[in-house]
Amino acid sequence: MKKGNLLYEGKAKRLYETDDPSALLLEYKDSLTAFNALKKAELAGKGELNNSISAHIFSLLAAGGVPNHFVKKVDSMHQVVRNVKIIPLEVVVRNITTGSLCKRLGVDEGIRLSPPLVEFYLKDDDLGDPIVTEDHINVFSWAGENEISLMKQTALKTNNILKDIFSPLGIVLVDFKLEFGRTDSGEVILADEVSPDTCRFWDSTSGERLDKDRFRKDLGDVLGAYREIWRRLSEGGKTA
Amino acid sequence: MKKGNLLYEGKAKRLYETDDPSALLLEYKDSLTAFNALKKAELAGKGELNNSISAHIFSLLAAGGVPNHFVKKVDSMHQVVRNVKIIPLEVVVRNITTGSLCKRLGVDEGIRLSPPLVEFYLKDDDLGDPIVTEDHINVFSWAGENEISLMKQTALKTNNILKDIFSPLGIVLVDFKLEFGRTDSGEVILADEVSPDTCRFWDSTSGERLDKDRFRKDLGDVLGAYREIWRRLSEGGKTA
Repeated sequence: MKKGNLLYEGKAKRLYETDDPSALLLEYKDSLTAFNALKKAELAGKGELNNSISAHIFSLLAAGGVPNHFVKKVDSMHQVVRNVKIIPLEVVVRNITTGSLCKRLGVDEGIRLSPPLVEFYLKDDDLGDPIVTEDHINVFSWAGENEISLMKQTALKTNNILKDIFSPLGIVLVDFKLEFGRTDSGEVILADEVSPDTCRFWDSTSGERLDKDRFRKDLGDVLGAYREIWRRLSEGGKTA
Repeated sequence: MKKGNLLYEGKAKRLYETDDPSALLLEYKDSLTAFNALKKAELAGKGELNNSISAHIFSLLAAGGVPNHFVKKVDSMHQVVRNVKIIPLEVVVRNITTGSLCKRLGVDEGIRLSPPLVEFYLKDDDLGDPIVTEDHINVFSWAGENEISLMKQTALKTNNILKDIFSPLGIVLVDFKLEFGRTDSGEVILADEVSPDTCRFWDSTSGERLDKDRFRKDLGDVLGAYREIWRRLSEGGKTA
C-alpha cells in the first residue's frame, strides 16, 4: 500500500493518503505530550509500542462487536485504517475518579463510579478541550442526537470489553478517551487509538501507574510502563 | 416579623432567621460583584430595586405555577422567604448565545437557541462554578435524578413565563440563572432571586443592555438600567 500525501499531523500520530480512497495509513510517532502540549517529549520506541497495543485492542474490540477504523498493522510504526471524518469530540469513560475531574469538580480521588461516567469534551486545543453537555453537542451540531447516543453506548460497551481484557492481566482500567469518525456512508465508528497514551492503567496489586501519567507526573520509566502493558497484552491474550 | 441571627451572607444578599422556623428574612444588599467577585462595587439603591423586581417576578411565577420561596415583601430591602436548603447548583437557561458560553465553547454571539439550552453549574466559588453534566450531579449526589429533571422542567417553564412577562415590555430575555432549594418535606422549589443581577435583559429595539453586563463591561449607568427594568415591570404589569 503506497504512502501518499500527509493529510493530518496530530500530537502523537500522522495520517497519510493511500492509493485506496477508503483507506488511510496511520503512523504512530514517538512524541509524547501532556497538558494540551505544554509538556512535550520524544520517547524512542513509544510509537511502535502504541501501534502494537492499539492494533491488538482494536482487533479485540471488533471481535467483541465494536466497529472501528482498524484494518491491519503493516509495519512497526504503521497501520491501515478506514478513511473516516473525525467527529470533533473526545468521549471519556471513567471507572474511578482521578485527574482533571477531581481538580475541576473538587471531588475525592479514587471514588469507584458505578455506573461509569461518560463525558464529552470538544476537541479544540485553542479552547483547552472544554467539557460539553449532550445538549451543547446537539444544539451546535457537533453531532446528531442518534450519534451522541451511539457514541455513549459504544463507549460503555468498549469499557466492558476493555475491563474484560485488562482485569485478567492484573490491570485496573481507571479511565480512557475515545474518538469516533464518520464513514462515507455516514456510519459512526470508533477511530483514533486505545493505548497507554489514552487510557489510565493501574497495576491491580501495586497500584503502579502504567500509562501516560508516568510522563504527566514525572514518575520515570515511561517506556517501561508502555512495554509492560504490551508484554501482558501479547502474552496474556490473542495477538492481533 | 423579628430579624434574628444572620444565617448566611452571600455576594448580593443576607439571610436572617426569624421567629418562625419555616421562614427566613432575605435582605438585598447594594453590593454588585462580577467574575467570581474579582470585580466589586457598591451601588446605593440596587438592593431596593432588586428586592422589588424579584418580589414582583416571584409573585408572577407562583401565579404561573412555579412554586418558589417568596412569601412577601416587608420593606424596601427585605422580603420573607420560605426556609429551604439551597441545592448547590446554578441552573442557567439560554435563549441567545452570549457571555461565558461563547468564550468557553468558541461559538458565535447572538445565535438564537430553540429549544433553549439548560445548563447546570456547581455552586463553588473556589472552583469557579464549573459546569457539570446531569451525570455528574447524579453520581456525586448533588441532586437526585428526579430533582434534576424537575429543575430542568421548572427552568424551561420559568423561561416561558419570563418571556411572556418581558416581551410586551420591549425586553428580550437573553439568559438567566436560577437556584433551587429543598423544603423540610423535601419539596424542591425555586429560590434565590430573579433580577438584573441574574438575568440578561436587552432592549428589544435598541439592543441596549439593561442588566449586570453594564457593570461587567463598564457600560455605565448600571442603576439606570435596573431602574428602567423596574419601571417597565411596575407600570406594565400587576405589581407584587
